[in-house]
Amino acid sequence: MIGVFDSGVGGLTVVRALMEHLPGYDIVYFGDTARSPYGTKSPATVTRYALEDARRLLAEGARVIVMACNTASSLAPEVVRQTFGVPVFDVITPAVEAALAATRNLRIGVIGTRATVLSGIYETRLRQRAPGCRVYSAACPLLVSLVEEGWLRRPETAMITKKYLLPLKTRGIDTLILGCTHYPVLAEVIQRKVGRRVRLIDSADGLARQLADFIAGPAGKDLNLPQTGRHRFLFSDLTDHLAGIARRLIKGHLNLELVRT
Amino acid sequence: MIGVFDSGVGGLTVVRALMEHLPGYDIVYFGDTARSPYGTKSPATVTRYALEDARRLLAEGARVIVMACNTASSLAPEVVRQTFGVPVFDVITPAVEAALAATRNLRIGVIGTRATVLSGIYETRLRQRAPGCRVYSAACPLLVSLVEEGWLRRPETAMITKKYLLPLKTRGIDTLILGCTHYPVLAEVIQRKVGRRVRLIDSADGLARQLADFIAGPAGKDLNLPQTGRHRFLFSDLTDHLAGIARRLIKGHLNLELVRT
Repeated sequence: MIGVFDSGVGGLTVVRALMEHLPGYDIVYFGDTARSPYGTKSPATVTRYALEDARRLLAEGARVIVMACNTASSLAPEVVRQTFGVPVFDVITPAVEAALAATRNLRIGVIGTRATVLSGIYETRLRQRAPGCRVYSAACPLLVSLVEEGWLRRPETAMITKKYLLPLKTRGIDTLILGCTHYPVLAEVIQRKVGRRVRLIDSADGLARQLADFIAGPAGKDLNLPQTGRHRFLFSDLTDHLAGIARRLIKGHLNLELVRT
Repeated sequence: MIGVFDSGVGGLTVVRALMEHLPGYDIVYFGDTARSPYGTKSPATVTRYALEDARRLLAEGARVIVMACNTASSLAPEVVRQTFGVPVFDVITPAVEAALAATRNLRIGVIGTRATVLSGIYETRLRQRAPGCRVYSAACPLLVSLVEEGWLRRPETAMITKKYLLPLKTRGIDTLILGCTHYPVLAEVIQRKVGRRVRLIDSADGLARQLADFIAGPAGKDLNLPQTGRHRFLFSDLTDHLAGIARRLIKGHLNLELVRT
């Protein structure tokens, strides 16, 4: 199976893209809702959680790990790869590639959780690929809470988004990486506040294409991933409120399973 | 020692009150920052965490447990009491007593996390003591995030607070329980938005007085609590950002210790 984990429900936006690009492939999702969010926590704690999440997915039969969480992806893909020796896909790489393909003026903005922004991963990776590019980052921690409250169209959300984006807008960016799986659901208000000419980059689609290419290639074929169309959604905690957000993100009915940590 | 736990740093407002009312008494604090917040999580998960937090404090030498977290206090004091057989103090009881002493029209408002409000604990306890009183509750989950971001005086915080409080204000409450340890730092904006004539009730002071009375009484004297003035602050996760908030809440320097969960 394809194993996907996230700190909570945000990674379901990635699962939706995987379902579109890899229909029929079995997917097991784990959302660590008992310990979410990750984006406010320290690198040591996030790394430990990422290892535990990957171990759980492997125990459930995953042969490929997708880190749908930007915070975990910014800190832990190498240690997960080295610990378990399985193919690991993170959400940073596809966003970096898509941003470099989209930018014309090489001024790229990045928004993410505090942990993601403090890690400096996007700057490092963008500058490795395009040494001349300028990267401007802003931590937007409240956007996660606003999405989890379902405040997608409220004026307060628009005000807070505007405040966060203003420093990036004044830098003249032409491309903005949505460096947190929660942000794509706010794409409309983000686009309005950062300006119509700025291209928004979301990892989900690029990641799904990258994984589809891998699966079609020789290493992917060797894995012999099952294609019975089975999708499982495991969470370390469940409330009615969370289940409602999960169903909205995946745009359909979900059978949510509670698992003990 | 007096053991105090909370989901994060909010409970330090309670510690501050304990330091004032019980100077010299040894205190050990545990903030479960690796798994915070609790207020968005299910009753089963919050109860499990409360038991683990109490167990940790007892292992550190606590002989009395103070549940400084409203969410845990609304769900788990009985099970903690029964499991460990030590005196357990929660933040609900003193708030209920203070609210009933303050109200004149018996219309009482309660704000808290989603988990606290869903538990219905304040309604139950207020109606047990004063069957005629009317209780109006509102979950204000975003206020915790706003406090943790340090957005205390921002216009967005005022707007969101106003939106949350409007339904309570229109009910004609004369007393409002701040049912989350994070809220007292927002007292000024809450007072402005709910109206000058509404009395705000914060548990910290009442809890500290209740504990001081207990310690001065026979059962408390039997415990023979040490009074070397030692204060320890343990956290399951630490970041620079969190340390900054902790120091602001306690209004002084703190030696924060990281402990493994």
